[in-house]
Amino acid sequence: MKRARVAYNGAIHDAEVREDRVILADGRCLREEQVVWLPPVEPQTTFALAINYADHAKELAFKAPEKPLAFLKGPGTFVGHRAVTRRPADAAFMHYECELAVVIGRTGRNVSAADAYDYVAGYTVANDYAIRNYLQNYYRPNLRTKNRDGCTVLGPWIVDAADVPDPMALDIRTYVNGEQVQAGNTRDMVFGVPALIEYLSSFMTLSPGDVILTGTPDGIVDVKPGDVVETEVAGVGRLRNTVVDDTTYFGAA
Amino acid sequence: MKRARVAYNGAIHDAEVREDRVILADGRCLREEQVVWLPPVEPQTTFALAINYADHAKELAFKAPEKPLAFLKGPGTFVGHRAVTRRPADAAFMHYECELAVVIGRTGRNVSAADAYDYVAGYTVANDYAIRNYLQNYYRPNLRTKNRDGCTVLGPWIVDAADVPDPMALDIRTYVNGEQVQAGNTRDMVFGVPALIEYLSSFMTLSPGDVILTGTPDGIVDVKPGDVVETEVAGVGRLRNTVVDDTTYFGAA
Repeated sequence: MKRARVAYNGAIHDAEVREDRVILADGRCLREEQVVWLPPVEPQTTFALAINYADHAKELAFKAPEKPLAFLKGPGTFVGHRAVTRRPADAAFMHYECELAVVIGRTGRNVSAADAYDYVAGYTVANDYAIRNYLQNYYRPNLRTKNRDGCTVLGPWIVDAADVPDPMALDIRTYVNGEQVQAGNTRDMVFGVPALIEYLSSFMTLSPGDVILTGTPDGIVDVKPGDVVETEVAGVGRLRNTVVDDTTYFGAA
Repeated sequence: MKRARVAYNGAIHDAEVREDRVILADGRCLREEQVVWLPPVEPQTTFALAINYADHAKELAFKAPEKPLAFLKGPGTFVGHRAVTRRPADAAFMHYECELAVVIGRTGRNVSAADAYDYVAGYTVANDYAIRNYLQNYYRPNLRTKNRDGCTVLGPWIVDAADVPDPMALDIRTYVNGEQVQAGNTRDMVFGVPALIEYLSSFMTLSPGDVILTGTPDGIVDVKPGDVVETEVAGVGRLRNTVVDDTTYFGAA
């Protein structure tokens, strides 16, 4: 099942997505463009991984890390499917990052990799935009690079874990204006989903609604205002975002 | 006014603190030890600063940074006044960090330093424990060092901003088992409260309930199970925490 959170007719609704229809919990059946898509989970603690694909590490001229390089995302940075994200005027290089996002469903501490999947509620897609020229430290990116208002796109929906038989064998693709620019597979993660859950739960209790953004493979290019960026994890979903400039984002003065 | 959040008699209460009495919003008047003290604000986005006192930078043999080195704290890491914090068996050096914590009271974006205090609801005290031997990168500490369960103590209460005439001239002191081990003053911050609000609001909208932990001066020593650690910001409050070992923390198996 695909579970979404949407705003429609003055209220927030849980919804189920079937083919191209959004079915609200109260039974109303809508088209995708009739609703405002929200991040499908209200973020509690959200972890993100830096340099978790060996090919991406190589692209950045780094050795893959020996331990997961995790950082946190603040609640203000998230937007849902079909939102716009701002490219500030002083950004010299702004890139998307298509990522498998793991949604925790059960409280867990010291979870072993062997049991890790028992703690997963489902999966969604993230586009974890970064602004390269704001970066001072690749290994643990600063907040200005990775925690701007609305620069982390999450959705469109959560696919139940039971509907994703092997999360470690999913194709990852990004399209800019319909042209494919990024291709990878979750099997190339340095630390896979079970290892990440084991690592993070070794020092912090994981809670339902926590999210792990698992990192991106190589193939990052600069995106400009007007670009439509679609990040896709096969079997999970395809998440759309449009890059806009300051004027479009803030509206008329 | 000093505003606290406490648990008492099966419920969570807003409370006011007057001298040694905790007065619940419903009028009940209690002693300090009768309640469970919670962090005085339910954390939204919590920013923390690394190396924000020149003397502490020197202590760590670092040059003071040119821009604020901010990182995020996850909601699971906070505990209130009089709680215990675990020292894991494999910690070789665990130290307190006494910090002035700024609580945001008003939504703000692109706030200038000149207007910054208009956005502050009040102040509280933080003890931002760190485990030195887990640290891989001083400039942006990893989650294992700074986001463990219950390793960030916050409280006891929020003092209204109006009752803190000059937050940039407050004595900072830490006591371990009653002996003073850390002494500093907020005037020695590299980036003061107005500059931090200006910097953080330049890329993220600040919201009511956001908290900024402003960093610690020098004077850090290793603390052991059984140590009572009191972090104090003069005119704000004195926050007590006890360090415990794994067995005491987790209880009988």
